[in-house]
Amino acid sequence: MRKLKAPEVVVRRLALYLRLLQGLGDEGGERFISSKELGEKAGVNSAQVRKDLALFGEFGKQGVGYEVGYLREELRSILNANRTVNICLVGAGELGTAVSRYNLRRFAREKNYPFRLVACFDTDPAKVGKKIDKVVEIYPLGDIPVRIRDLGIEMAIITVPAEAAQDVADKLVAGGIKAILNFAPVKLFVPSHIRLQVADVSLELQQLAYYLDR
Amino acid sequence: MRKLKAPEVVVRRLALYLRLLQGLGDEGGERFISSKELGEKAGVNSAQVRKDLALFGEFGKQGVGYEVGYLREELRSILNANRTVNICLVGAGELGTAVSRYNLRRFAREKNYPFRLVACFDTDPAKVGKKIDKVVEIYPLGDIPVRIRDLGIEMAIITVPAEAAQDVADKLVAGGIKAILNFAPVKLFVPSHIRLQVADVSLELQQLAYYLDR
Repeated sequence: MRKLKAPEVVVRRLALYLRLLQGLGDEGGERFISSKELGEKAGVNSAQVRKDLALFGEFGKQGVGYEVGYLREELRSILNANRTVNICLVGAGELGTAVSRYNLRRFAREKNYPFRLVACFDTDPAKVGKKIDKVVEIYPLGDIPVRIRDLGIEMAIITVPAEAAQDVADKLVAGGIKAILNFAPVKLFVPSHIRLQVADVSLELQQLAYYLDR
Repeated sequence: MRKLKAPEVVVRRLALYLRLLQGLGDEGGERFISSKELGEKAGVNSAQVRKDLALFGEFGKQGVGYEVGYLREELRSILNANRTVNICLVGAGELGTAVSRYNLRRFAREKNYPFRLVACFDTDPAKVGKKIDKVVEIYPLGDIPVRIRDLGIEMAIITVPAEAAQDVADKLVAGGIKAILNFAPVKLFVPSHIRLQVADVSLELQQLAYYLDR
């Protein structure tokens, strides 16, 4: 049922479909949504929705659509959103602290938010030992391997300055991290079995600027 | 020389090439870089580099490569990075303030950083009238159209809560914004002539989580 080789854009849309389905709420009784309706919410056409979902199984019924609760659970399973995923953040500066709090609050508020921030790391001795929102401790960078192992951390968010990011990525990889979301404005190199996603504000802005005057 | 229809992934790589070239510094004299070398830094192969650049013109010489300073200026021109682009931010919460400061600092420090934050907007009366880093004033949402016009704002960053984001996007579009970078965890709908880029932390994490256990 799961395919390893789903294109990245499909995975991105699946994550969006899941969010949209979760936004539909849990009213009692069965509820159906058509590929057209889901597509409209996602900004793609109905054929795309059907094609994306067909990669993973047969979730809908001809002429009826998808049962919302069922499709939601299937997508949660496909995306590993049906279990808690422990994450860490490296770089407890202003951006890192904001991203940390954002995550902590969503995890506390939303029963379906799967990402639990369990550790932060920073080089600054003044920050080490302190806690973010009285919940998540800041550890020194040298603790990365032991914390990844002991806390069962699977994914990391990097919010350190550009010049420190590759070293941090190397430490995370050596410690056994499986996936990285990188906010640092620099291209990172990681082994091919590590998933890397880029969340780079200045690169996004530069991409947008291309379309100005056009 | 400019093509309107370059695929988004190409534009993204151009932005990355530009950053990499800017990272090479300004040592005196002519300096050349091969498509292989540039590709290695960008994490793509040399054929991809040549293909991407060929969409916009002939920038290199066979067997010699690209002259760094020249290619950099050409890319700056293609990406509108050769002029200051005024931007605004809507939602001066924690994430918004962090993103604002990040931008202000880069603009102050880096002579090649083209994005100048000139206004913030928020609904909170306690925030309106205050300044971020003593530089950028926070205005009420109702001021969006007049500030876009008077300050020549071309792009906007949205960091409001999900439920407020579509209304904010509508106000920005009505005010004449050309491009939007959206951090709010919600799918936004804008007219097709408006460029929209998504910087959504939870969606990025959900995408990464797909690859866990695989």
